[in-house]
Amino acid sequence: MNRKLPVAVLGATGVVGQRLVRRLACHPWFELTTLAASERSAGKRYADACAWRLPGEPYAGLADHPVVACDAARIDEPLVISALDAAVARELEPALARRGAFVCSNASAFRMSADVPLLVPEVNADHVDLVAAQRDGGTRGAIVCNPNCTTTVLVLALKPLHDAFGIEAVSMTSLQALSGAGWPGVASLDATANVVPYIGGEEEKVEEEATKILGALAASPCVSIRASTFAISAQCTRVPVVDGHTEAVGVKLRGDPSPDAVLAALRAFCSPFAALELPSMPATLVRLHDANDRPQPRLDVERDDGMSVHVGRVRRCPLLGIKFIALGHNAERGAAGGALLNAELLVRKGFVS
Amino acid sequence: MNRKLPVAVLGATGVVGQRLVRRLACHPWFELTTLAASERSAGKRYADACAWRLPGEPYAGLADHPVVACDAARIDEPLVISALDAAVARELEPALARRGAFVCSNASAFRMSADVPLLVPEVNADHVDLVAAQRDGGTRGAIVCNPNCTTTVLVLALKPLHDAFGIEAVSMTSLQALSGAGWPGVASLDATANVVPYIGGEEEKVEEEATKILGALAASPCVSIRASTFAISAQCTRVPVVDGHTEAVGVKLRGDPSPDAVLAALRAFCSPFAALELPSMPATLVRLHDANDRPQPRLDVERDDGMSVHVGRVRRCPLLGIKFIALGHNAERGAAGGALLNAELLVRKGFVS
Amino acid sequence: MNRKLPVAVLGATGVVGQRLVRRLACHPWFELTTLAASERSAGKRYADACAWRLPGEPYAGLADHPVVACDAARIDEPLVISALDAAVARELEPALARRGAFVCSNASAFRMSADVPLLVPEVNADHVDLVAAQRDGGTRGAIVCNPNCTTTVLVLALKPLHDAFGIEAVSMTSLQALSGAGWPGVASLDATANVVPYIGGEEEKVEEEATKILGALAASPCVSIRASTFAISAQCTRVPVVDGHTEAVGVKLRGDPSPDAVLAALRAFCSPFAALELPSMPATLVRLHDANDRPQPRLDVERDDGMSVHVGRVRRCPLLGIKFIALGHNAERGAAGGALLNAELLVRKGFVS
Amino acid sequence: MNRKLPVAVLGATGVVGQRLVRRLACHPWFELTTLAASERSAGKRYADACAWRLPGEPYAGLADHPVVACDAARIDEPLVISALDAAVARELEPALARRGAFVCSNASAFRMSADVPLLVPEVNADHVDLVAAQRDGGTRGAIVCNPNCTTTVLVLALKPLHDAFGIEAVSMTSLQALSGAGWPGVASLDATANVVPYIGGEEEKVEEEATKILGALAASPCVSIRASTFAISAQCTRVPVVDGHTEAVGVKLRGDPSPDAVLAALRAFCSPFAALELPSMPATLVRLHDANDRPQPRLDVERDDGMSVHVGRVRRCPLLGIKFIALGHNAERGAAGGALLNAELLVRKGFVS
Repeated sequence: MNRKLPVAVLGATGVVGQRLVRRLACHPWFELTTLAASERSAGKRYADACAWRLPGEPYAGLADHPVVACDAARIDEPLVISALDAAVARELEPALARRGAFVCSNASAFRMSADVPLLVPEVNADHVDLVAAQRDGGTRGAIVCNPNCTTTVLVLALKPLHDAFGIEAVSMTSLQALSGAGWPGVASLDATANVVPYIGGEEEKVEEEATKILGALAASPCVSIRASTFAISAQCTRVPVVDGHTEAVGVKLRGDPSPDAVLAALRAFCSPFAALELPSMPATLVRLHDANDRPQPRLDVERDDGMSVHVGRVRRCPLLGIKFIALGHNAERGAAGGALLNAELLVRKGFVS
Repeated sequence: MNRKLPVAVLGATGVVGQRLVRRLACHPWFELTTLAASERSAGKRYADACAWRLPGEPYAGLADHPVVACDAARIDEPLVISALDAAVARELEPALARRGAFVCSNASAFRMSADVPLLVPEVNADHVDLVAAQRDGGTRGAIVCNPNCTTTVLVLALKPLHDAFGIEAVSMTSLQALSGAGWPGVASLDATANVVPYIGGEEEKVEEEATKILGALAASPCVSIRASTFAISAQCTRVPVVDGHTEAVGVKLRGDPSPDAVLAALRAFCSPFAALELPSMPATLVRLHDANDRPQPRLDVERDDGMSVHVGRVRRCPLLGIKFIALGHNAERGAAGGALLNAELLVRKGFVS
Repeated sequence: MNRKLPVAVLGATGVVGQRLVRRLACHPWFELTTLAASERSAGKRYADACAWRLPGEPYAGLADHPVVACDAARIDEPLVISALDAAVARELEPALARRGAFVCSNASAFRMSADVPLLVPEVNADHVDLVAAQRDGGTRGAIVCNPNCTTTVLVLALKPLHDAFGIEAVSMTSLQALSGAGWPGVASLDATANVVPYIGGEEEKVEEEATKILGALAASPCVSIRASTFAISAQCTRVPVVDGHTEAVGVKLRGDPSPDAVLAALRAFCSPFAALELPSMPATLVRLHDANDRPQPRLDVERDDGMSVHVGRVRRCPLLGIKFIALGHNAERGAAGGALLNAELLVRKGFVS
Repeated sequence: MNRKLPVAVLGATGVVGQRLVRRLACHPWFELTTLAASERSAGKRYADACAWRLPGEPYAGLADHPVVACDAARIDEPLVISALDAAVARELEPALARRGAFVCSNASAFRMSADVPLLVPEVNADHVDLVAAQRDGGTRGAIVCNPNCTTTVLVLALKPLHDAFGIEAVSMTSLQALSGAGWPGVASLDATANVVPYIGGEEEKVEEEATKILGALAASPCVSIRASTFAISAQCTRVPVVDGHTEAVGVKLRGDPSPDAVLAALRAFCSPFAALELPSMPATLVRLHDANDRPQPRLDVERDDGMSVHVGRVRRCPLLGIKFIALGHNAERGAAGGALLNAELLVRKGFVS
């Protein structure tokens, strides 16, 4: 690749958008050419359109870059990464796809559409072929989605176990970070020294998205996904943590393997799609922790640029057989980095060039 | 009761001890006559022995009260409430019982002893008869225990369901408050904006204590407890909340009742031991919340002097049938208030007078 | 007073409004008859118009009370307590005063108006006579204001020193609680484990309000306030505390008294207006702390229903002579309770009956 | 420098020690050869001696390195960086200096000794010549100190103003991070959603250290420091922030310059010792912030590896003329990085080679 591919970011002023901008500022394949956001921001310099809320160089060097409105007619990059809210995404993303763009969407709007691949490349990169189903409809481009942040962490921790043993049931309680709600998001009077035991729509998303991602691509009669059939229950809570979703997971595996066997499977795991060598794939995908009190979001979540998932406390569960703690970066692995991985996958697979 | 019964508090300088002192300062039946603590505190005024860490009047009016050492030979109240650490409790509490005292222990040392009742009076006040087993050994007094704070909240939420339907399996993930670890307890560098996904010994305690409490008293061949046989799995985490353990519970009930049926059972619940009318029993034991985002520890936990348990978000669980959120005050309902209720039970039942 | 005086609360759904509702639910003189809020809330039950965010009984028993719009034509109580935003207050409060109502305003809109008394009753109850200046303009009612929460805490701590010695200069840095910004107020992503070193307009408010309050009422040529002339500088920051503004104060006093002399003055202080015996005046107005590490917001701010002010660490200042820490409840003493005290003062002085 | 200089770190297991280890793991001049800690840690692998509490690679690659006891007889590196507690430092550091070592101490033990340079290299690198005074006593090595973390941030912000105008008076209130107290440090029950308005000895340290650092080196009759004579008052508080001390500063400058003149001086500032080009000196020493609500510890403190100091909100002070907000990384700039800079200075100046 001797010249960089132009990329547009939609929703560039938000919590996820800023992370996309930061990642793209030093990306080996991509060049960020369009920053798009709401009408209110359009026409402003990037630095005037939002307050930069990430450590490090403010605006990642793009302080003076102009922000444009999210208007399908004016975004002509072949590759678009969308950090839009679901409501806006629902209108804009299909319009872009019709115009020929490949849209890597972080929004929830189309994740469960039958013809939209819901991708975590290390888990189910093969599902990308589902875009063929969209193009049957005459669309020249396509929409591909990354899952909800909580789902992403969960399926990355489950994938090695699904491959090694087969999953029969999953119970998961999440302790989710504040950045998952964006900015302004959760009011500090609600978050401080408190737990909010509810996140609208989140439990349903986790339950349905996980089985789609861990499902199988079927080629006939037409390209489609056959979802996994394991039972899954999620309880999602918000805790006063800045970044990093912690998940207390119980899992029933075929053959009821011992904790040692599960640890061995996690340790031996190599993504079946590692050979794609996407630039944003972490060298170590699943980091295992020995210490009883790890992983912890504040100490562990920034490791590997937030792209690995952490697993600790693998032990016997009196109810389901195995239980453990998983942790991942909701705003990187579960959002900005996840969407970017999908963009890399589309390029690697030749959909965009 | 025309004169108040003298009571000693062991461990009076700690987080739980201070709450006991505050509760006893205005108790209708009891008069706090001895404040006992470690050697380091012995001989000091109460106000010099510790920093008062509760809102309201410092030292509950007992700032000048002398603190004595935890020496069995010098504590002669017939009723003793112990907020000692397990290691100290293991030595001291049996010595006091042999001398004739009834010890209401908040420590974990003897909770699972076959002849020690593990009591949450609204749940299993009848288990108090197990003290007969201790007296067979020649001990004149007895030890009764209240369970771990996390267990207490859980069994109070489960009791109405166990009585109405019968419990077959329980899954519980806790988000526990900092005060559960005492003072100094968790380091602020570990707690701030973080989750610590491990509390030593806690999961095992919850799993074994819950089945003992929800078990049945058997009268022959000798007085004993036949533990419940439901499967139970606990995952316990620490979150940056001051007071109040939140528990995400999944439960499999006999007959697979609907959420509405479960709500009706919770609403209709009246403790089978309500007629004991112990002074520290709350008027409403289980508070049901309609709002999706409740209960929340910072907003709800102080209700009813911290003695009620809160339940919200009762809904269908794809895995176990029913899931909900429970919340209770770890340091009141789960410790100081729980131990005090046990003391009241002993008096009401005529063991102490 | 054999029947209670009807009172309307404006802005009843907000953080301060809820506290007013709670205080009025058990007030010896007043009966809360009208709950007014924005158009969005009008016509709803109180419980449907807002989420109750205070511990204790939700909605203080008024869950079913109807909420009306803030329409001057429909609020006919003679006494109105306003927790409105400044912009709304600027229109509505004068309209109410013209219709004959006495409005106790927590808003900033009219605090610095030459004919509006800015009152902390224990400090300057005599300033209430300034309402005469308003009535000269033909207004039948009047507006009286309580100061900004930060100012309130400061002047209560300064008043004993001003009376005993005379203030020549004040330096104050505040560490302000989140509730001071209302709900949703500060975003949790900004507040968590962070300091925001800026609160719009706050420093100017403190600097000008304090000198007005500690100024003198002049009777001729017309009723007016002659502001104090001491130099004052405020730096205001936001910290992740729920309730309670902490203030690090340096003060230059006439005659350069020793810390012991200052402590004696604080200890001996009795408000010159204590004889008014307003129901919401705390028995102890200034609570002195001996422990070096007190007062602390989480431990001390709820004392005396949040109506006292706390002072600790009185010591020598190499720059101004004396420095100390002050603490007070921003949402009670500095807002709801302060406005209510003003209402009580108006009644005691015979303006309303 | 063609081979790296061996360096020992004392107190390697603590909060500051871990940061030193991390910094030395990739230092251009130094090689970390000895990790020393308390007796309890001696003989263990580094990974067994402590829990790593920094983001990134645990133990910075030295997990297997042995930890030795802090025994002067067994530490023979010519350059030692000490993150010891004051009490231990008081014994050990002079012993090491007598044996010929140059000790860069982060401890408070010798900071105010007349013959010990108290160094912030960009501010007063010339003071290093004070070590001559130590060697007069026959000591072959020497002790040099970096100041208290709060002092460090303050003098870095004041230095440009002292050079440009001359300081006449300083008022400073700090909002200090938890990491400044080490681990376990502040109990989470004290820190959570709270302010502790006291840090033992801190205010005195700031007041005396700042005038020594901003003082002048006098060459005769003997090498000594003539402290600055400006008045200074500090109030130090602890807030629930992980890293980064925020300081609200008021300053009286000669000639009463305008905020614009002060901003120009800050913007134009270049350390008089920048030509030393020490590896840990940041490219930009004082970062000025335009946004009213910056700097903020969580967003800004990690910039420049924590080695720059941040200044914002420069404005007129009614009391002293100028006020502003300063922020710096207490554990990097104010401790580990500060001590390391001193080590670099000693090498650059030829004291160690």
